[in-house]
Amino acid sequence: SIDAARLLGRIRTLGEIGRDADGRLIRLAASDTEKLGRDRFAGWIEGAGLEVAVDRIGNIFGIWKPEGTVDAAPLMLGSHIDTVIGAGIYDGCYGTLSGLEVIETLKAEGLTPSRPIVVAAFTNEEGVRYAPDMMGSLVCAGGLDVDTALATIGTDGTMLGDELERIGYAGEHQPGFLRPHAYIELHIEQGPILEREGILVGAVEHLQSISWQRVVITGDANHAGTTPIPMRRDAGHAAARVVTFLRDRAQASNTPMVATVGCMRFEPDVINVIPSRAPFTVDLRDPDEDRLKEEEAALATFLDGVSAEEQVGVSMERLARFEPVKFDQRIVRLVEKAARDRGIACRRMTSGAGHDAQMIARIAPSAMIFVPSIGGISHNPKEYTADEDLVAGTNILLDVVRRLATE
Amino acid sequence: SIDAARLLGRIRTLGEIGRDADGRLIRLAASDTEKLGRDRFAGWIEGAGLEVAVDRIGNIFGIWKPEGTVDAAPLMLGSHIDTVIGAGIYDGCYGTLSGLEVIETLKAEGLTPSRPIVVAAFTNEEGVRYAPDMMGSLVCAGGLDVDTALATIGTDGTMLGDELERIGYAGEHQPGFLRPHAYIELHIEQGPILEREGILVGAVEHLQSISWQRVVITGDANHAGTTPIPMRRDAGHAAARVVTFLRDRAQASNTPMVATVGCMRFEPDVINVIPSRAPFTVDLRDPDEDRLKEEEAALATFLDGVSAEEQVGVSMERLARFEPVKFDQRIVRLVEKAARDRGIACRRMTSGAGHDAQMIARIAPSAMIFVPSIGGISHNPKEYTADEDLVAGTNILLDVVRRLATE
Ligand SMILES: NC(=O)NCCC(=O)O
Ligand SMILES: NC(=O)NCCC(=O)O
Repeated sequence: SIDAARLLGRIRTLGEIGRDADGRLIRLAASDTEKLGRDRFAGWIEGAGLEVAVDRIGNIFGIWKPEGTVDAAPLMLGSHIDTVIGAGIYDGCYGTLSGLEVIETLKAEGLTPSRPIVVAAFTNEEGVRYAPDMMGSLVCAGGLDVDTALATIGTDGTMLGDELERIGYAGEHQPGFLRPHAYIELHIEQGPILEREGILVGAVEHLQSISWQRVVITGDANHAGTTPIPMRRDAGHAAARVVTFLRDRAQASNTPMVATVGCMRFEPDVINVIPSRAPFTVDLRDPDEDRLKEEEAALATFLDGVSAEEQVGVSMERLARFEPVKFDQRIVRLVEKAARDRGIACRRMTSGAGHDAQMIARIAPSAMIFVPSIGGISHNPKEYTADEDLVAGTNILLDVVRRLATE
Repeated sequence: SIDAARLLGRIRTLGEIGRDADGRLIRLAASDTEKLGRDRFAGWIEGAGLEVAVDRIGNIFGIWKPEGTVDAAPLMLGSHIDTVIGAGIYDGCYGTLSGLEVIETLKAEGLTPSRPIVVAAFTNEEGVRYAPDMMGSLVCAGGLDVDTALATIGTDGTMLGDELERIGYAGEHQPGFLRPHAYIELHIEQGPILEREGILVGAVEHLQSISWQRVVITGDANHAGTTPIPMRRDAGHAAARVVTFLRDRAQASNTPMVATVGCMRFEPDVINVIPSRAPFTVDLRDPDEDRLKEEEAALATFLDGVSAEEQVGVSMERLARFEPVKFDQRIVRLVEKAARDRGIACRRMTSGAGHDAQMIARIAPSAMIFVPSIGGISHNPKEYTADEDLVAGTNILLDVVRRLATE
């Protein structure tokens, strides 16, 4: 079994890197704080006697390549180090640190794997600073050209390529230089299902479709006191109508469709001025691709109606669009077997969140393992998974990796 | 008649002070750019041979005190120099510069007034940076203690008193050291009525009630992809419901009630995070005080419902609350007479915007004169009033002042 104290210690150490003055954890992709997290992770990789490799999109790989395995496709584990704003300490870090932990454990055991084993920390999984999310793994999987990705402009006006240069993580390797034999990602569920059902392990066999769009509504600034209601072209009111429309659709849906407006700004943002501009984001998800398409179409139709009724301009920009992914059935069954062998309750499930595994699944058999998130809370400082669950999940990963690495 | 070229030249000069890199006019109260505007105005006052006086809340007075008038209560004209964000060049400046223009004209004419004539530029009329609006005139009128006003914290976290010290406009005089005999404010209408009716001058006999509140909704940050709709405590969605509620009320109202949400922020403002906090402002106005009270009560009830239904916290803070004001009938009639004598079409009207006259009306007979705003546009760079209308309005003011100054 793995070294629980080492794993938990590293999770807590990394979880302190990037706290701001208010105690909020913020390690946005390719930022100064994320650099500190990357440096720490790379240091642990080196300390474990693995080779550190960085590719052009900034993905970090810790490569264990014992004698004789050199030319075989590697088994890959991993996740990401970047976080949202006001994050918990587990999302992403758990997958990268447990991957490293499993490799160190197998190395110490004296295992002779049939192929290299690699732990990966993919760049910009969260997609908060630069869209789309899962960018580093998407580039690895050939789904996005690396130069296009590096030219992405962030919410703060920076360019990802410049930022990676700046923090020293614009690597030499071509993305995709490692083509995995298989990929497994251990992650906290970030949703309520496992805890609610009292089940310790999720064998993730599916990941829902994701649609991200940025909408900008333009109206006309005017005086809040003198402008009669029929004369208003109120970008803020039009945006609010979209927010309630999306919620109403999700509430009425007979699929577990979710819709979220996470970013919203009114401009000029002045108490007695009718907003002239309202940029906001729309995050739509559904396990069923056709249903998601219906929702996107319904939103487009609604925006046309709002544009006409409110006399406002509407523009939409696509930030991310991913179809649902079915993970590799064999690996899913290996996860179930590993849980069974350790006497741990396990269920198959769908992932509500996007993950790097979803991208790597394009080029290699992939699957994920989930452990419970208390209260289903994530992207929140209250995100929490019990230590014993973190350890149990990592031991399941260890068993699956040992199996895949020796066949 | 007044010197049209001098007046229009000054309006244009002041209108260039405070343009940012994007060409937007921003002269927020007690800011660096507003200091430049104040300096210019004070320079013109001195150039006209008047005395400059500044009180503790930063109001600037240009005092024409001819021999023999020293002890009489002054006739006061004026308005303000601060602007909103993305302002036009007329709002406020027109009233201060036309006031100065009228005094210079009467002085040059060799008029011997029966009392001093004063032009005032009141601090923080817009209320954008510090609430409430009309702060300088409110303090003058004894409606707000000067020390309380100076301790106001702005939207940018600054304290008004500190900022006035910093820009050199924390004066020595006690606010109210000048108690006007009468006050007249010339202003652009900022609404659509005069232009629509083809009338050049509004004799403003009434000003509607104003209610400003700041609402903060608090929910729970959570993952946009994994959190089922019934588990959400979405501060952004709750805020959007309030925006559409207010619009629906205004639309359905049988009075000319208006409701505006000008400021809105979602926090943490991240695409895949359900908003945990949504602070926003509510600006409600109605010519009828009882109706405004009804609207405030309806909003409070609605917020209670939203709080329960959306499982969110709601807090409200009062930023400003002013009852309607009826202006002095005699001055209103003098405005009508002056228009008639010059053959200019005039109508009585209500002001949709708040104005310093509304505050000074508490301590002196007051009224306002409006000129048309093209398209009813204000608080917008497109704010525009034709030169000849600006000149005509100032000549009406001149006539009314000449009359009041010699009786
Ligand atoms: N796991 C996770 O939080 N990924 C971020 C991308 C998403 O929004 O699903
Ligand atoms: N005149 C004017 O725009 N005043 C600002 C205060 C208000 O919002 O009415």
